[in-house]
Amino acid sequence: MIKITFPDKTVKEFESGITGLDIAKGISNRLAKEAVSVGVNGEIYDLTRPITKDADFAIYKFEDEQGKEAFWHSSAHLMAEAIEALYRGVKLWVGPSVNNGFYYDIDLPEGKNITEKDFPILEKKMLELAQQKNEYIRKDIPKAEALKYYTEKGDEYKVDLIGGLEDGTITFYKQGNFTDLCRGPHLPDTGYIKAVKIMSIAGAYWKGDEKNKQLTRVYGVSFPQKKLLDEYLEMLEEAKKRDHRKLGKELELFTFSSKVGQGLPLWLPKGAKLRERLENFLKKVQTEYGYEPVITPHIGQKELYVTSGHYAKYGADSFQPINTPAEGEEFLLKPMNCPHHCEIYNSKPHSYKDLPLRYAEFGTVYRYEQSGELHGLTRVRGFTQDDAHIFCRPDQLKEEFIKVIDIVLYIFKTLDFENFTTQISLRDKDDKSKYIGSDENWAKAEAAIIEASAEKGLNTVIAYGEAAFYGPKLDFMVKDAIGRSWQLGTIQVDYNLPERFELEYTGSDNEKHRPVMIHRAPFGSMERFVAVLIEHTAGKFPLWLTSEQAVILPVSERFNEYAQEVMKKLALADVRVSIDERNEKVGKKIRDNEVKRIPYMLIVGEKEVENNSLSVRKQGEGDIGIMSINEFSDFIKDRVAEELK
Amino acid sequence: MIKITFPDKTVKEFESGITGLDIAKGISNRLAKEAVSVGVNGEIYDLTRPITKDADFAIYKFEDEQGKEAFWHSSAHLMAEAIEALYRGVKLWVGPSVNNGFYYDIDLPEGKNITEKDFPILEKKMLELAQQKNEYIRKDIPKAEALKYYTEKGDEYKVDLIGGLEDGTITFYKQGNFTDLCRGPHLPDTGYIKAVKIMSIAGAYWKGDEKNKQLTRVYGVSFPQKKLLDEYLEMLEEAKKRDHRKLGKELELFTFSSKVGQGLPLWLPKGAKLRERLENFLKKVQTEYGYEPVITPHIGQKELYVTSGHYAKYGADSFQPINTPAEGEEFLLKPMNCPHHCEIYNSKPHSYKDLPLRYAEFGTVYRYEQSGELHGLTRVRGFTQDDAHIFCRPDQLKEEFIKVIDIVLYIFKTLDFENFTTQISLRDKDDKSKYIGSDENWAKAEAAIIEASAEKGLNTVIAYGEAAFYGPKLDFMVKDAIGRSWQLGTIQVDYNLPERFELEYTGSDNEKHRPVMIHRAPFGSMERFVAVLIEHTAGKFPLWLTSEQAVILPVSERFNEYAQEVMKKLALADVRVSIDERNEKVGKKIRDNEVKRIPYMLIVGEKEVENNSLSVRKQGEGDIGIMSINEFSDFIKDRVAEELK
Repeated sequence: MIKITFPDKTVKEFESGITGLDIAKGISNRLAKEAVSVGVNGEIYDLTRPITKDADFAIYKFEDEQGKEAFWHSSAHLMAEAIEALYRGVKLWVGPSVNNGFYYDIDLPEGKNITEKDFPILEKKMLELAQQKNEYIRKDIPKAEALKYYTEKGDEYKVDLIGGLEDGTITFYKQGNFTDLCRGPHLPDTGYIKAVKIMSIAGAYWKGDEKNKQLTRVYGVSFPQKKLLDEYLEMLEEAKKRDHRKLGKELELFTFSSKVGQGLPLWLPKGAKLRERLENFLKKVQTEYGYEPVITPHIGQKELYVTSGHYAKYGADSFQPINTPAEGEEFLLKPMNCPHHCEIYNSKPHSYKDLPLRYAEFGTVYRYEQSGELHGLTRVRGFTQDDAHIFCRPDQLKEEFIKVIDIVLYIFKTLDFENFTTQISLRDKDDKSKYIGSDENWAKAEAAIIEASAEKGLNTVIAYGEAAFYGPKLDFMVKDAIGRSWQLGTIQVDYNLPERFELEYTGSDNEKHRPVMIHRAPFGSMERFVAVLIEHTAGKFPLWLTSEQAVILPVSERFNEYAQEVMKKLALADVRVSIDERNEKVGKKIRDNEVKRIPYMLIVGEKEVENNSLSVRKQGEGDIGIMSINEFSDFIKDRVAEELK
Repeated sequence: MIKITFPDKTVKEFESGITGLDIAKGISNRLAKEAVSVGVNGEIYDLTRPITKDADFAIYKFEDEQGKEAFWHSSAHLMAEAIEALYRGVKLWVGPSVNNGFYYDIDLPEGKNITEKDFPILEKKMLELAQQKNEYIRKDIPKAEALKYYTEKGDEYKVDLIGGLEDGTITFYKQGNFTDLCRGPHLPDTGYIKAVKIMSIAGAYWKGDEKNKQLTRVYGVSFPQKKLLDEYLEMLEEAKKRDHRKLGKELELFTFSSKVGQGLPLWLPKGAKLRERLENFLKKVQTEYGYEPVITPHIGQKELYVTSGHYAKYGADSFQPINTPAEGEEFLLKPMNCPHHCEIYNSKPHSYKDLPLRYAEFGTVYRYEQSGELHGLTRVRGFTQDDAHIFCRPDQLKEEFIKVIDIVLYIFKTLDFENFTTQISLRDKDDKSKYIGSDENWAKAEAAIIEASAEKGLNTVIAYGEAAFYGPKLDFMVKDAIGRSWQLGTIQVDYNLPERFELEYTGSDNEKHRPVMIHRAPFGSMERFVAVLIEHTAGKFPLWLTSEQAVILPVSERFNEYAQEVMKKLALADVRVSIDERNEKVGKKIRDNEVKRIPYMLIVGEKEVENNSLSVRKQGEGDIGIMSINEFSDFIKDRVAEELK
């Protein structure tokens, strides 16, 4: 008998060799139908793989990340089977599951190729094979035997793959006429796959090395229900409409220039103002929480990064050093602000009474990315972190952590990111050798993060072994309006830099102590955050943030002068407003501005001029009444205050 | 007879060969006594040098820059004579007048040196020689003869100097026992020099080349009256107290780190906040004047600067290119923001109706300076320009220029730089070949600057030949509280970059036209401006700008709680205030805070707690009455509004 511990900590005994599927069936038929894989002591198992030891146990559905992984990995095998059936002589490299589906890298026979018009044929073949409900059969084979098999088959890719594995047995999976070496896990049979879509093809060098042959990478996605595929494709359509690169251009927020260089955004006036409003918003919150601004240069001597350890770790892959024309100095573009802030900390001695110190900087950093990796504002070569570093005593860590969480939660609430998850990354339980800092400090820091998260009621997942080598961290993943996840906001504890920069404070015991550092960036970077915000809101920003809060619509040109007067008064009251002075009927003006999604329309004609008033319409809702100019500016102020509450 | 035209345009006739001194005597004895040199067709002449042709004529006193030049140059010769008398065998290189006095580079005989304790001896010798009233006698000698004289004397320095001159005659000056080759001009005799001070010595490589022998550079200053020297030394004492490097440290505004690199300031919290206040002040003004913010990266592809022409002109002397680890790209740290702004202009097409466009950016730029040239915040390697570029039609140039002048004047007024001069730099009248742009455009631009300056009532000096090759400019020089001049604020017209970046707009004629660009930076840079402001105000910033507007002084510790309450309320009303919670008598607290020059002290005790009030003291003036907390915050708001009016 083995002991199976369920996620709710209840324990049941089963015969050794029982499968996840059997356990699920024991709970309910519905669950057994929805299950796609199981977790056994943190490892993902096939539903049909026997469990032979006591285990922490979990059942994964398609909705779960672990479920998707098995589902899409099995779909990659299914696609490979279909490709082999359609393209005789094709050779296969590898086919993993990825973020939004799966791919397989294939080497097509001489003269063959796949284009978009072949996608439906491939999809049809996959569904045909899926309907055969072929089981995914796991089999362990000695390495030598596997090598012999593929050598005889003349498949140099798999031979190379097996050659790189450790000696012993190798796991294979077979479904229908297709066999692949693979660690698994997989679905019980292909019948689970009810809907497939081939998404795209791309070139991919074998092993990612541009000196090797270019293979064809075929991307696909699959689902257990046709409905889910339809929803997914709809979401993609919607995402395309919300693409921040498209909206950023339409809203005139930012641009790129081939002369300035790729991945280096130029913020246009509307974007610069939007960014300034976001920065001021965060500055205000940070001031309330006792942060102090600092400003540091965008370069630092190479020595600074040798001290911090960044040069040894990332130097070769970064923008290369800047030499001086004389005196033989070497500088680097700063890839992060922390070393500069450490030097500010070190610019004078500190007492335990001075701590915590919280240095904040909207610091622009530069990191080299290959041009193929660049994408709009989400993957750039220069970006501005909403960075801050907290230098505190170990006994202040938890309180400081709670305060940072408060700031992050306030921001998420204000910007309507209500749907988010958090992950606490801790040390590997079994291998503590790869981390720096004393056990005592790690225990303190990990407890501080766990307790702080619990006190703030966060629904956290704990990931062992995911901590940085210099300390544990807490990450926030938000879901946007169309259900996509984005990593925003990170809080990290750091024992490394205080050590490397020899940071000190004098304790109440009159001895020298080392402070702890917290790195934190609630937005992550201004670029990435604005991109996510655009896609989340489809460019319809909250009132406090939007470029145009209202537009004045004169009923005819006779009232343009009054409109100008209104605009001036509202501008003085910090309301952002424009005028539609076109010689058009007011009905058309309303329709046109309705489409632009400006929150309020202010109609002015005979009556309004007489009474010194405005007829106010809310976008998407219609008339909301007559107001004086002051009433309207107070109205906007109240709405904004409510948003920022 | 020759015609002499005076500055007021009156013309008089004189015998050819008349001297400046004779002309001055003809006007008044007093003027003749005060005159130290004259201007003859823009060239500075000795007072005693015969004038033999029609000339524009001016008499220079010691107060005039041209007067000082002759005075200090003559003093350098006097010092050289004294040095030759005191150090037999010394060899002399060159000795010009400089900004604040003069120096001579000398090669002392083996085993001899000059130290500070020798300065009085040297000064005494100089005064002794001065009192001999030895005439400065000008003499032209054939080059060959001069060369022979110095070769025989064994003076390799002067031999080298003469060798580098054109063939023909060489001008020498002789006074007392000292002869030097020299273009002049000089004083009539050494008796003019009534007060001398040797300031310092430094090492200086022969011809500035570190491979050559190091000579000794002796710096001195001299005056026509003892009183002027005393005043000058007093000013230097005061300047030392106001040194922004010293005050910047005391006020915790900025610091430097040897690890980050020299010439790269780190702004500490108080400095960052001060800078932010200055930036917000300027942003507000600029918004009123229709400027729009943009944000651009701190690097650009080399190609960007090849296009702008900066690479060809400054590339070799700049921070060297940044290479990428792959893909072979080359970037440069941006030395100015204009190329980036041109690319923003080019990001979409423009109509004549869109202009002027005014892009503003607090853009941090990096320029290499040799380490020996670096000085506090006034000479750095990285600095933030309060930059903006106006793209306008040629017919808008004058109006735009006036608006920029208005901004500069408003800033000077608000920051109490009432004492300033302006210079208009135009093309060389005789050689127009070195400038780009059509004659028509230059005529327009020069007229626009001259007319705009006149309309704003500026007291301008026109400097022909001082324009940049790409356009004319207007510079502002302010005098600080202790009489020193600083160059702040520049407005420049540019025809070059619009050409190089092929900027265009569609005119009302539906044809493509080229806009004109105006570069402008009223502060110059945040670093330099803050430095000047510190030295101008001795760190006592105006109320709207200062870090601490008031300090609360509880009469005893019993009132600390009330003080905290007051601080919170004032902070909410944006008054910047701290508390002196020390357990000290209130008298001592007042004295201590008086020294810190915090503008207001708020004394709180029994009576104040009872009445919910404050006893307000003004720094340097004493008690100004009882106020409620609201009254005090309104009081501060009113004072600030007045300052910013």
